[in-house]
Amino acid sequence: MLTDSRSALECPAMSSPISRFPAPRLENLPEDVRARILAVQEKSGFVPNVCLVLAHRPEEFRAFFAYHDALMEKEGGLTKAEREMIVVATSGANQCSYCVVAHGAILRIRAKDPLLADQVAVNYRKADIPPREKAMLDFAMKVAVASHALEDADLEALRRHGFTDEDAWDIAAIAAFFALSNRMANFTAMRPNDEFYLMGRVPKQP
Amino acid sequence: MLTDSRSALECPAMSSPISRFPAPRLENLPEDVRARILAVQEKSGFVPNVCLVLAHRPEEFRAFFAYHDALMEKEGGLTKAEREMIVVATSGANQCSYCVVAHGAILRIRAKDPLLADQVAVNYRKADIPPREKAMLDFAMKVAVASHALEDADLEALRRHGFTDEDAWDIAAIAAFFALSNRMANFTAMRPNDEFYLMGRVPKQP
Amino acid sequence: MLTDSRSALECPAMSSPISRFPAPRLENLPEDVRARILAVQEKSGFVPNVCLVLAHRPEEFRAFFAYHDALMEKEGGLTKAEREMIVVATSGANQCSYCVVAHGAILRIRAKDPLLADQVAVNYRKADIPPREKAMLDFAMKVAVASHALEDADLEALRRHGFTDEDAWDIAAIAAFFALSNRMANFTAMRPNDEFYLMGRVPKQP
Amino acid sequence: MLTDSRSALECPAMSSPISRFPAPRLENLPEDVRARILAVQEKSGFVPNVCLVLAHRPEEFRAFFAYHDALMEKEGGLTKAEREMIVVATSGANQCSYCVVAHGAILRIRAKDPLLADQVAVNYRKADIPPREKAMLDFAMKVAVASHALEDADLEALRRHGFTDEDAWDIAAIAAFFALSNRMANFTAMRPNDEFYLMGRVPKQP
Amino acid sequence: MLTDSRSALECPAMSSPISRFPAPRLENLPEDVRARILAVQEKSGFVPNVCLVLAHRPEEFRAFFAYHDALMEKEGGLTKAEREMIVVATSGANQCSYCVVAHGAILRIRAKDPLLADQVAVNYRKADIPPREKAMLDFAMKVAVASHALEDADLEALRRHGFTDEDAWDIAAIAAFFALSNRMANFTAMRPNDEFYLMGRVPKQP
Amino acid sequence: MLTDSRSALECPAMSSPISRFPAPRLENLPEDVRARILAVQEKSGFVPNVCLVLAHRPEEFRAFFAYHDALMEKEGGLTKAEREMIVVATSGANQCSYCVVAHGAILRIRAKDPLLADQVAVNYRKADIPPREKAMLDFAMKVAVASHALEDADLEALRRHGFTDEDAWDIAAIAAFFALSNRMANFTAMRPNDEFYLMGRVPKQP
Repeated sequence: MLTDSRSALECPAMSSPISRFPAPRLENLPEDVRARILAVQEKSGFVPNVCLVLAHRPEEFRAFFAYHDALMEKEGGLTKAEREMIVVATSGANQCSYCVVAHGAILRIRAKDPLLADQVAVNYRKADIPPREKAMLDFAMKVAVASHALEDADLEALRRHGFTDEDAWDIAAIAAFFALSNRMANFTAMRPNDEFYLMGRVPKQP
Repeated sequence: MLTDSRSALECPAMSSPISRFPAPRLENLPEDVRARILAVQEKSGFVPNVCLVLAHRPEEFRAFFAYHDALMEKEGGLTKAEREMIVVATSGANQCSYCVVAHGAILRIRAKDPLLADQVAVNYRKADIPPREKAMLDFAMKVAVASHALEDADLEALRRHGFTDEDAWDIAAIAAFFALSNRMANFTAMRPNDEFYLMGRVPKQP
Repeated sequence: MLTDSRSALECPAMSSPISRFPAPRLENLPEDVRARILAVQEKSGFVPNVCLVLAHRPEEFRAFFAYHDALMEKEGGLTKAEREMIVVATSGANQCSYCVVAHGAILRIRAKDPLLADQVAVNYRKADIPPREKAMLDFAMKVAVASHALEDADLEALRRHGFTDEDAWDIAAIAAFFALSNRMANFTAMRPNDEFYLMGRVPKQP
Repeated sequence: MLTDSRSALECPAMSSPISRFPAPRLENLPEDVRARILAVQEKSGFVPNVCLVLAHRPEEFRAFFAYHDALMEKEGGLTKAEREMIVVATSGANQCSYCVVAHGAILRIRAKDPLLADQVAVNYRKADIPPREKAMLDFAMKVAVASHALEDADLEALRRHGFTDEDAWDIAAIAAFFALSNRMANFTAMRPNDEFYLMGRVPKQP
Repeated sequence: MLTDSRSALECPAMSSPISRFPAPRLENLPEDVRARILAVQEKSGFVPNVCLVLAHRPEEFRAFFAYHDALMEKEGGLTKAEREMIVVATSGANQCSYCVVAHGAILRIRAKDPLLADQVAVNYRKADIPPREKAMLDFAMKVAVASHALEDADLEALRRHGFTDEDAWDIAAIAAFFALSNRMANFTAMRPNDEFYLMGRVPKQP
Repeated sequence: MLTDSRSALECPAMSSPISRFPAPRLENLPEDVRARILAVQEKSGFVPNVCLVLAHRPEEFRAFFAYHDALMEKEGGLTKAEREMIVVATSGANQCSYCVVAHGAILRIRAKDPLLADQVAVNYRKADIPPREKAMLDFAMKVAVASHALEDADLEALRRHGFTDEDAWDIAAIAAFFALSNRMANFTAMRPNDEFYLMGRVPKQP
């Protein structure tokens, strides 16, 4: 691992600051917010900066992660890798460094594919994905950049690739949620943790 | 009042549907979701369609309104009318009929001004607002349409008009939240309730 | 009525100026220009600011209103409400406050519909209009924002909805004329009269 | 001369049609419209196609040319060559072949410069014009493509180059009028007369 | 001829400079670069400014013209006039004065048509060209302005007009090469030689 | 290493094709082209697909790489890492997967920084680079996406950060060359070699 995640947690602004706003100290956070952050650290080995940056406002933090989990952790017609593809493609269009780097890492892991995230971030039309997922990303990108022009024909195109209307809601809602997330990350100048860059790129050693 | 809100609640799709998705029946909703909807109806005299449309997914409904309230109902450096101005201006840029019409109504009421909402929706640069609020909307619009290009100079411009960095977060977070909201409304083809169009336009009779 | 239209005529700049340019005094205008303005006042109960702002240049005033009447008052395949829809939709795209507010009022009256104008101004694709009028506005918007790309297929699409080529000329000419009008209103910072905002929203009392 | 203008007048659609609409026959036009066309022919040696194309609708024809003359033939702070520069630059931005070719010819003649029109049509920032005229075209282009964003600072920039506010009106009104004209020419697929291409390029022989 | 080309060669910056960078003196250039320039002068009667401007960097000069000749002088499915059309249309979209003026001249000569270049530069959709060449320019323009969105359907459209895939490469490569060339000309503020403006416009006298 | 580069060379289209066009066989290439490709293979351990894809046209291949080397391998005011930053940032703007992935790898190696390339590809404004390099990339991006609007002030901004006008040429020429390169890669659907994705991310073991 490139950095020591424990020191990253305790000294988040040691080198480059993680945000335009001061990162709160864990011990000053409300109990539920701190617990959530520690649980993520337990699972990931480090605290993603989005947690610390948004914890500056605990109420918004709670709503943000409740929304995130409702969309990204649920069961449904989309695989978890497909959900991450939507995040990476639309965050690329919004030029959000944090979300492309962090969710690129998660996409590599969920898809068990070390190449896919970079392809989707730059130009999903050229990525190694089947037509079904190209249609999914066409729809997600229209939600991200031209939602005013969405029309019945766009949902029809999804149906032709086997997506239900509930799947369409999932795709749209993920693109919409990261429209919010990308803007907050760009506003706060949220810095991706160094750990994300390499995650999922190197096959685990036996 | 132009329509009978009670029948609107019970028969939301009588004439034009309120969404591309079927509106749930109140009695089928989880207790907390139904309670919130009934509380809004009690206060407003009708159920805004956004409540019924999003109740299709109770978990997302809860997160959406928790986020909404954290940003729009809180105390802070921005007045409630200013918050609504941000919603109306950015929703106009995103061509979101529901949010322009519904929050236009709320803006008229909060600002006690029957003209302001239409001005802000079409072109806030020509609206009857002081330079401080023009600066606020310049910043909000950059969050809405070009957040990748936000830089320190944009925050500096806010500070010159007396905004604190916490105010900047409020402005950015409201613009970001309605980036989500506008996309969901455009995706679902969410229909503004007829009641909104006239609210706040006619002075109350003595 | 929210303001006294007579005083609005005599003191157009009492509160906010109606234009970046000084409004001329009625008694200093050429006879034909004054007569036209008084006729409008007689009919509407107030003088729309566009008349006073453009009367600054009588020759341009005469050509402007001659063109306007040739397009908006004529008989033909388009109803008067349809003509106003074209004005409201394209003026929304051009972010022209004066034309959206003033012609929004006229649209409400001509269509006898208190809701339609706000819908068309924000996003005509979601307005309560039949496919024929969506096709009409698709064409008008292409004239307004991408006329260089107009091609035979665009006229063919109109014909499929029953429009003749003379109707196509009407649609294009109205969109083109308000391309001019929107730019003059934006240049002069033309202020919509307060009277327009409420016109056509409240059913007449018996 | 490349073509025989008399036959061009009598047989306007001999080779390529001059418009998507049938050109009217001179003898069927109202007397005043025909007289104006014949006067132009007398002066120019041929009938510009814009006359025949717009004569399809005599009332609009009259308003169009009354407006045109009020802006292009008047005395004032702008030279006639400067007025034509505004036409050529904004028509280039709108990709209007007719106006670039026809007014390019007039610009060459009015400016007594065989090179200027092509420079202004492609990229006025690189044209051989002094800073005053660059400022004029900066303003005209903002009227043409982003009039919603015009602000006091834009007029102030003109004043710094010696333009009065009446000059600003002239610049804006010409850009606005050709916003109309470009859209009508693009809609009708108006064809520039062959004569225009060479006019003003070759010095008159002694 | 409007200017004396010999003096243009020896005193390229006599009146207006031909570039933001100093033009090298012929006698200081490497032998092969000088030989190429003299050969062009021999053939054309003057030295196109692009030669002098790029000779500032001999290595880049050599690669530029090797690439240029590989694309523009080769045999193949496209006529030389068609190649120049691609240059003129895409250079117009990139607002490159040098390439529009210089290659406009070459297009007039190669197509033996005094009108075509101006038509293609402003709006190729309205130019006097058959559907095959419209399809060619549709493809070239997509390469020029939205190459990320190219897809199999775009090549399929070319094939329907009889273009082979090798022709598609030619079209794409010419549009790509002039993407480079336009940017260098815009960066250096490269000035078109006066000679180009009139070339190919006047039929040769017998 | 994720794949066996030797088999990649011999069987470039085993899994996904490296281009829309057939890759030539090494033994069929002209001697100088083959020699260059083998030299790259010797140095890198694999053959970058750009070599094989462009070798389809040997003359263009030679010009392309001569130009490339003249810009990327030369001495001068810019470091080699800075040159690669320009490539990565502008290729990101052009959504060119091949150039972002391949030159991202080279940037990591030249800058000895495993994080920089991903930052620059998504949004260079947020990358860990000093103001001098932000100014360099501001200029490069203007060359890439709006070269028509370049003006003296843009060069002045570079000078304020210590860049000479020769450095400005380097920056502009690299951005211009990759405008060409990105379009060819997007046209051919050029596939980045698997090897690039991981290069420069993992510190060498002692």
